[in-house]
Order: sequence, then structure tokens, then C-alpha cells
Amino acid sequence: MDHDLDLQAEGPELTAALVDVSSVSGEEGPLADAIERALRRLPHLQVTRHGNTLVARTGLGKPERVVLAGHIDTVPHAGNFPSRWDSERLRLTGVGTSDMKAGVAVQLRLAATLPEPNRDVTYVFYECEEVDAARNGLYLLSRDAPELLVADFAVLLEPSGGAVEGGCQGTLRAAITAKGARAHTARSWMGKNAIHEAAAILDVLRAWQPRKPVVDGLEYHEGLNAVAISGGVAGNVVPDECVVTVNYRFAPDRSEEEAQSYIRDLFAAWPAEILDSAPGAKPGLTSGPAADFARAVGGEPRAKLGWTDVARFAELGIPAVNYGPGISEIAHTPGEYVDAAPIVAAEQALRSWLTR
Amino acid sequence: MDHDLDLQAEGPELTAALVDVSSVSGEEGPLADAIERALRRLPHLQVTRHGNTLVARTGLGKPERVVLAGHIDTVPHAGNFPSRWDSERLRLTGVGTSDMKAGVAVQLRLAATLPEPNRDVTYVFYECEEVDAARNGLYLLSRDAPELLVADFAVLLEPSGGAVEGGCQGTLRAAITAKGARAHTARSWMGKNAIHEAAAILDVLRAWQPRKPVVDGLEYHEGLNAVAISGGVAGNVVPDECVVTVNYRFAPDRSEEEAQSYIRDLFAAWPAEILDSAPGAKPGLTSGPAADFARAVGGEPRAKLGWTDVARFAELGIPAVNYGPGISEIAHTPGEYVDAAPIVAAEQALRSWLTR
Repeated sequence: MDHDLDLQAEGPELTAALVDVSSVSGEEGPLADAIERALRRLPHLQVTRHGNTLVARTGLGKPERVVLAGHIDTVPHAGNFPSRWDSERLRLTGVGTSDMKAGVAVQLRLAATLPEPNRDVTYVFYECEEVDAARNGLYLLSRDAPELLVADFAVLLEPSGGAVEGGCQGTLRAAITAKGARAHTARSWMGKNAIHEAAAILDVLRAWQPRKPVVDGLEYHEGLNAVAISGGVAGNVVPDECVVTVNYRFAPDRSEEEAQSYIRDLFAAWPAEILDSAPGAKPGLTSGPAADFARAVGGEPRAKLGWTDVARFAELGIPAVNYGPGISEIAHTPGEYVDAAPIVAAEQALRSWLTR
Repeated sequence: MDHDLDLQAEGPELTAALVDVSSVSGEEGPLADAIERALRRLPHLQVTRHGNTLVARTGLGKPERVVLAGHIDTVPHAGNFPSRWDSERLRLTGVGTSDMKAGVAVQLRLAATLPEPNRDVTYVFYECEEVDAARNGLYLLSRDAPELLVADFAVLLEPSGGAVEGGCQGTLRAAITAKGARAHTARSWMGKNAIHEAAAILDVLRAWQPRKPVVDGLEYHEGLNAVAISGGVAGNVVPDECVVTVNYRFAPDRSEEEAQSYIRDLFAAWPAEILDSAPGAKPGLTSGPAADFARAVGGEPRAKLGWTDVARFAELGIPAVNYGPGISEIAHTPGEYVDAAPIVAAEQALRSWLTR
């Protein structure tokens, strides 16, 4: 089925239309097709497609270029597709409403209605943000066509409750292994129980106190959690191994390497394997284009605690912030919703920044 | 292929022949066939087959009847099939040598060569001892034809290193659950980490001191171990549940019910589910037929710490002991072996008890 998007519709209506084209990660084709058709009707934009990722650029020769980026995929449906309005059409409920088709609607509205913004704009609509990093459309674009992402500043329209969220925390996962020696449980004193030994790993986690450093004026809040534990051989065997997987969310004053060293030191008593990690990003809101942006849209900037593609832009040397109408706290829940008013407000704020 | 067993061969040779008829649990048919054919050639025995379990009884009208029982199945092969002798034919290596085809060979030798023992004897060769209790041939026989098991005393020829092992410890498994509340790890303080909570369950296990009660003159040694632990939702989620599975091996001065209450009390702070349990059996070596048997075969009786079908006989009201030529400590290992000399010695001791 071909879907036609009406970019003249108001942001909330366009959000509902976007939600109702299913686009679970890996299955973004029909939505990407619809967005591509809508963008190609706009003569002031140069459109490029890469997989199910679309890039649309103005070419006005302005001294400054900014990226407005959003992912078009959602987590799997959870009885919340298609979308539905409440009786007064103030609140739209459905998968991907907050995370982040409301933001995508704002991008599309600006793309359609701002033929001559005060800065050149690169609109990016990308696939597979909700799944593993190797499939992320923004990553693939930065690898295969980095010239399309060149810019002075980037805004990710991720749900941020209408506030400017600066930077993001890094994340790493590590497997900490307690070792023991197998024995039959009828003679358990012949062995050494690795699960009992793992209690000492959990003691480290229980005693850990989070750092809350202030970086570029924003307060971060670290976290260190066991996210998995497994051990056991059979119902009558003293187990010889128990693995605790921990997730460390670290503030952007620590590099990836520093965070890995910190975890190795903290669990120095056990073999520790770093499973994966991604760096954080400093907010950069004290000066430059991010500070300009924060002043323009107003409100009190706050620290982004989760990891977002802001860190990817940081790696590309592009300052970036999150700013979008959705609510991150309800993202990925069956009851996910977005309110109409913040969608309109975000569009107005960005329009003002790009025109005044 | 049909296998013919020569019951006139010496015990060690017969053991090798039995090992070389593969009989992993559930696949005992060919070995049961061979044993049945050999037994049916003996006119002094009444033979009954029940699945792959065989019962052979003398009918001499003696005032006392004893059971000699052994299982014919083995754990799966581990590169240790068929059997092989060392160069001096003193040690036979292979799957099921100790556990417990050496014992089965002793049973068959006695069955073939003692037409008129001093007590009536019921020989039981049963299937599926190494797998779950519902398939155990001795259990199925006790359920379907209990009259075939009526006796004053029973000897299980399980590997006991040639010593009389009295009674057995009971065993139960329970699932102890730590609860929490899910949250994204980027905001972990919004939730409660169930894996961290489970540390307190492990603390109970670490602090636990084993009881070593003396029952009917034999010292037992209890054990309490985590045999499995699991928890975790995803790499970025604070988990809301962590389950620790514990195995309690309890001395036979405690009933199944007492053992269950003990575990519930010990872990009263958490939901505890009893997964399965089996009672122990008191050794009964201070008087009666078990004491007579121990005196007749000599040596120092010791407590059986593992669970065996001795407990099943105890439930049927039949005192029972373990007495066999194998070595329990190497059972189920790839290097499992049995020495020739203890096979001959066990046969001699039992022959003396049944003839003098």
C-alpha cells in the first residue's frame, strides 16, 4: 500500500499519519517511501536516499548549516497500533508517538514550509535507531556518505519534553565472572560454589555510590547496575561459574577508556570482560551554536542521562542537542502517547530560530 | 543384534560384557533382552518383565526374603564406550563400569550360581535410574506390582567402594525469588534492582553452617547450595526479578516436611517455592536385618550422603543398604572405571551371607 503524507496538515495530524504507517525497526520501507515522495515534491530541497534513510538539504549558500535529525523506526507494537486520539484530540496514544514520530512530523513541517531559512538546513530521517548500533541509519550514513552530514550544529528531535537536553551519558557493559569448582551437591564441600562467590560482586554493586558531576553547567547522574546474572550446571551440581553482567552509565566528563579502566579497577578481584561501550558527549551549552540554540528556544537546559545519537554527532565533531516534543519517560511503554500542544510549540520554536 | 551373556564367566569378565551392551537411560531394551534370556535359562527362578525391568525370584518358602537390586542404565557415553582393560586386566574403564554394571554382574553371578540360598532372594534389574524419578523402573514396579518387591531387607548394589553404606540423605530444591522494579538503566534510581537484592539471599547461603548429625551411629553431613541463579531483562533495563535455586541435602533425622519448613523459615524474607523433594532414609544399622548384613559382610559401615533408591525401599517399609564394588566418586566421569578385585570380593561376601 502506498501512503501519501500531507505536509500541509498541522503537526499533530501529521504525527498521527506517521504513526499509522507501521515502521518497526527493519521494516521502515513503506514509511521511507512515503517520506521520500513527500520530500521530492519540494523543489527547494536536494533529496538523497541511503537504504531507508533520507537526507534532504537546502542549498542556499548560507555561512551556517544545521542538521535536524530524527529516526523513523519504532520498537515493536504492543497492542498500541494504530494510533488513537482522546475525545478532545489533545492526546495521541500509540507506538512511536513520543519516540519519535512527533519529532519527525516537526521536521517534515519545517522542511515543507521553510523554503528560505536563515541557515542552510540538512534534514535527516533515519532507520534502525532502536536496534543494534551496526544497523543504525545515521551510523551507516556517517560511514558511507559523511559529506551529507557536514554541519556546524545538529538538533536531534528525540523526546525531551520540550526542553533542550545537552550532551549524553556514555554506556558500557561488562561481564564479571566469579569462578568456583564443580562438585556433586551431596558432597558440596569438595567444590567451591561460584554463585556464592558472586555475592561479593553484588556487594560491590550494592555499596557503589553514584557520581553526579556537573559538566558545562549541567548535572549528570551516573548508574551502575547488574543487568543479568547467570550460573548453574544442574540441579545436583555445585556450579563452577557465575557471570554478572553490569551496565555502567557514565557522565561525559569521563572518556570511554576512562570508564573502562574504572570498571576494571572496581572489579579488580575478578576477570572482567568489556562487552561493548559507547562514549558520552559533553553538552557544550556554554558557548557556540548549542548555546545560541538554547537561548533561542528558551527554557532551562538539562543533562541528557540516556545515550542518544548526540554522541555520534560529537564523534563527528558536530555539537548537538536533543530537543523534541515527546516524553522520553514513557517511550517504549504500551501506553506511549504524545500531547498535541508540545508538537505545535516545538515547531514554532524551531521555526522562530530558523527565521528570525 | 542379540547379545548372549555367559553367567559362568567370572564377575570382572561379565562386567565387561554388560558394559559393552549400550544401555543409556531409555535405551535399555537390548540389555534387558539379554538379561531376560539369561535368567529364563535358570530353572530355580521365576522371571517377570515390566518394561525394561526384570524381576527374578527364588521360591523356596524360606522365612526371610531379601532383595538384591541394581539399575541397568547408564549416563550418556563420553568417549568411554566400549570398555577397555588395562594391560594386566586389573582395571576396566568405560561408561557404567562402577555405576553400576559391576554390581549387576555380581547380581547375575549370584542368581546363576545359588539355586538354594539360605534366604529367598528377589533379584531386580531396573531401568532409568539416572533420569527423572517418574521413569525410574523401581518406582514403576513399586507402583504397578508392589507384591514383587515384598521383602524383609534390600541390598542396592550401587557403587559404595565395597563398604556398607547406610541410609541416605534427602534432597529438595527450592526457588527463592528476589523482587524489584524495572527501570531504564539510564535512570536506574527510578527502579529497584532485583539482582542486587538477591545478594541478601546469597548472604544467607554464605553464612550457613552445615549440620552433621549422628543417626543410628553414622555421621551425616548436610549441604545447602545455590545450583542456579538467573535474572535480567535486557542490557539497558534494571531487572525486576532474580531467582536463586537452592539444593538442600538433609540428613535422615529430618523428614521431607521438616526439611521444607526449615528452608521456608531460613528464606522467610522472600517468596520460596519448593520445586521437588525426596526423603532421606535412616540407616537402621543398629538392629534387625541391616545390622545382620553389615556384620556378615564386615567392614566399617558409613553414612550414604547422596540420595539413592534406598529411600524408596524405606518408603515401602523395607530396610535397605548400599553395598557394591564400584566407586561412587568417579561415577558419571569420562574416566569411570572399576577394579576387578572388588567385584570378586563383593560376590564372595554376598555369597557367604546367602549360604553360611
